[in-house]
Order: sequence, then C-alpha cells, then structure tokens
Amino acid sequence: MKKAILFLMAVSASAISFTAAAQFAKPEDAIKYRKAAFSVTAAHFGRMGAMAQGKAPFDAKLAVENAEIVATMAKLPWAAFGEGTDAGETKAKPEIWKQNAKFKEAADKYQAESVKLLAAAKTGKEDTFKAAFSAAAGTCKSCHDDFRNK
Amino acid sequence: MKKAILFLMAVSASAISFTAAAQFAKPEDAIKYRKAAFSVTAAHFGRMGAMAQGKAPFDAKLAVENAEIVATMAKLPWAAFGEGTDAGETKAKPEIWKQNAKFKEAADKYQAESVKLLAAAKTGKEDTFKAAFSAAAGTCKSCHDDFRNK
Repeated sequence: MKKAILFLMAVSASAISFTAAAQFAKPEDAIKYRKAAFSVTAAHFGRMGAMAQGKAPFDAKLAVENAEIVATMAKLPWAAFGEGTDAGETKAKPEIWKQNAKFKEAADKYQAESVKLLAAAKTGKEDTFKAAFSAAAGTCKSCHDDFRNK
Repeated sequence: MKKAILFLMAVSASAISFTAAAQFAKPEDAIKYRKAAFSVTAAHFGRMGAMAQGKAPFDAKLAVENAEIVATMAKLPWAAFGEGTDAGETKAKPEIWKQNAKFKEAADKYQAESVKLLAAAKTGKEDTFKAAFSAAAGTCKSCHDDFRNK
C-alpha cells in the first residue's frame, strides 16, 4: 500500500490537497483543474450538440451517456474559482470575483439545466432533448459572455 | 436556439465530433481530452489519498463524493487513445498501441477497482476504504509504469 500511495503522491502532487478546506495546493492547480473539467464537458456537450443540430442522427442512448457526464462535470469547476485564481493561464474575467453572486447564480443556472438536460435525454424524445439542449447551451453562452475572455 | 448552438460550436469546436464513430475531430483534441479526464481524476484521487494516508481525517461522505467522480471519470479516457494520438503533447508510450490488449486490460482493471473503491467508500468503514484505495492506486501505478513516460 505504501508504495502505491507514494506513487500517487508523486504523480498527482499538483492536484493534491491535504485538508478538505484547501482543495488545491496552489492557484495554478485550481486553474488547471477547472479547465480540465470544462474540457471534458465541452467534448460531451459537443457530441450532444451534433445531435441537436442534426449533424449526427439522434441516438437516445448516446444522449443519455453524454448528458450524464455533463451533469456530473457541471458540479465540479466552481470550487476551483477561489481567491487568488484570477491570474495566470486563465480566461476568467475579474467579474467572477467582483460580481461573485451573479457568477454563482449563472453557475447554478447551468447546473440546473444540465440536470434537466439529462432528464430530457432520458425521455428518449428528440424534440424534448433538443429543447433542453438549447436551454443548457444558452446558460453556457450567457456565462461565457459575462465571465470569460475570448 | 440557433444562436446558442452556433455559440457552442464556436467555443467547443476543438472537442466536437460530428459522427459517433469519430469522437474527436483531430488527434490533438483526443490528447487534450484524455489529459483533462486524468487531471480531474488526479484531483479527486488525491483527496482520497490524503484520507487514506491519514493526512486528512477520514470523512465517509467526502470519500463517496470523490469516489463517485473517479468512477465516472475512469470510463472516459480510453476512447481517446485512438490511432494517430501517439504523438504530440503526450506522455503516452508507444506500448499503448504496440501492446494494445495489455493496455486495455490495465484500463479495465483500473475501472473495475474504481467501482470497488466507490462501493468501499459507501460502506463508511475506514479500513475497507483504505484497502480499496490502495488496490485502485496500485492499478494507476502499474499502468503508468508500463504505458506512461515520466
């Protein structure tokens, strides 16, 4: 066990926290983490987008699979927007911290839509899925518009 | 809807696929995706590692939360190790493709351990959790040893 844990400490040291309160050892770890979470999201959101756009045939099973991942990922990035994570390799706008309540509201809205999108995918109905996808994509857009540099 | 979708296409174009078969438009998208999935995993695995190591107090709820994310993430990276993704910004060893059956076996083993780890976390028993964590960390280590450059 010791060897495996030492190994783990070595390979993932950058993302390790030793208290529940300080989830990231360094601001750059938090930035890397939230970008990673959004990258994974974008891939799966994009696959649903292809179906919503009619560029790929609607496949209910695939929609559910992707929506499940997106709904899980939607919970993750927000804890990584702590104090001191506004500088460095990030497109985050200062408004995230200056208008933090508004940012949180936007994040909550997106999370709520990601849950609705999963429920819509589970109905197996293409129109229901498309409508929910559109609503979810809208929350991505408005949050990016307000809080993310191009 | 159109506006939101056009937006989505623009922001996540790099990760979008238009057929279910070709999940990534470019090899670098696949590489970025799998690294992102592992980064998210590392953060949550690390939080469990702190508890398994006794550097953070054991918190069953936190263990379950982190194990759930790890178990979900454990399914994701493998589809992104397709042909042509062996070069570029990656530490992937050529053995992934040369000994693909062995790689798949290692990936399967890790996934199975991630499921067991979640089950162990759900028991709420610290010793059970620690043992399962150690087994899961062992599968990380052996796969990294064989298939990942330092």
